[in-house]
Amino acid sequence: MKDRYGAEYLQARIGKEFPLAASMGIVVVAATDELLVLSAPLGANANSHGTAFGGSLFSLAALAGWAWLSRYAVSNGLDAEAVIQDGHIDYLLPVHGEFRAMLASPPAAEIEHFRKMLRRAARGRIRLHADLHDGPNLAARFDGVFAAAIRSRSG
Amino acid sequence: MKDRYGAEYLQARIGKEFPLAASMGIVVVAATDELLVLSAPLGANANSHGTAFGGSLFSLAALAGWAWLSRYAVSNGLDAEAVIQDGHIDYLLPVHGEFRAMLASPPAAEIEHFRKMLRRAARGRIRLHADLHDGPNLAARFDGVFAAAIRSRSG
Repeated sequence: MKDRYGAEYLQARIGKEFPLAASMGIVVVAATDELLVLSAPLGANANSHGTAFGGSLFSLAALAGWAWLSRYAVSNGLDAEAVIQDGHIDYLLPVHGEFRAMLASPPAAEIEHFRKMLRRAARGRIRLHADLHDGPNLAARFDGVFAAAIRSRSG
Repeated sequence: MKDRYGAEYLQARIGKEFPLAASMGIVVVAATDELLVLSAPLGANANSHGTAFGGSLFSLAALAGWAWLSRYAVSNGLDAEAVIQDGHIDYLLPVHGEFRAMLASPPAAEIEHFRKMLRRAARGRIRLHADLHDGPNLAARFDGVFAAAIRSRSG
């Protein structure tokens, strides 16, 4: 069965809700319960050295976090606002082509803790990690704390 | 006397070297030995809540760091490549309009240490801090480590 809240759903939301995503050429490659993958081309995101701008790498990872949280909420029948509270990135290698942010779902215990906070207090937060890859190479590591606040219960 | 490496100089370099800066609408407001200020409008950088996208705030601050380092190098007759090595941002308040990254020059002792590293090893790094403002409000705090490598000596 096709996932109702998969890549197409998130691509449409990102396109509608983040005008900069179109300028960056962001594509939702995969969106499952296990993994969220976004990609962006080098061209629009290049810096003065012909490699990827550090701000674009951070932005792709931050959007992956937003997408994970938004997908988690809607998949669980929650109408939640997701925002980033802090973010950290370590740049390891210059990026010479299309790059990807790969965000694996956090451990089940952390998701469960987040779910309980959402249910009890209508808000919760969770730390998400994303790796940024240039082909097979790990180019940067991102982590950030994302918060969700429930607007209403649906579904 | 007009500063040879002031706002106009950096605006031209950013426009030429970072295609995303034009999509973001980045403007170099001020560039002196004491302070570097970049601004960006909300429109192109909005998120799903009609406030500024966290990735745009990070990108503006990272570009301010790049601009500070590039200006420092060229003002001192050095042809240096500047790159970001890591970055951290704390989001304090949502941004509802045009926002600014304000980067004050680091303490003289840190700049002197950086200058010595550049002279001895042709590379150096320095931690830079930037505050992100929405009008009078401090909306986010950024810091990052930036590295410079000298390509050749000019001037």
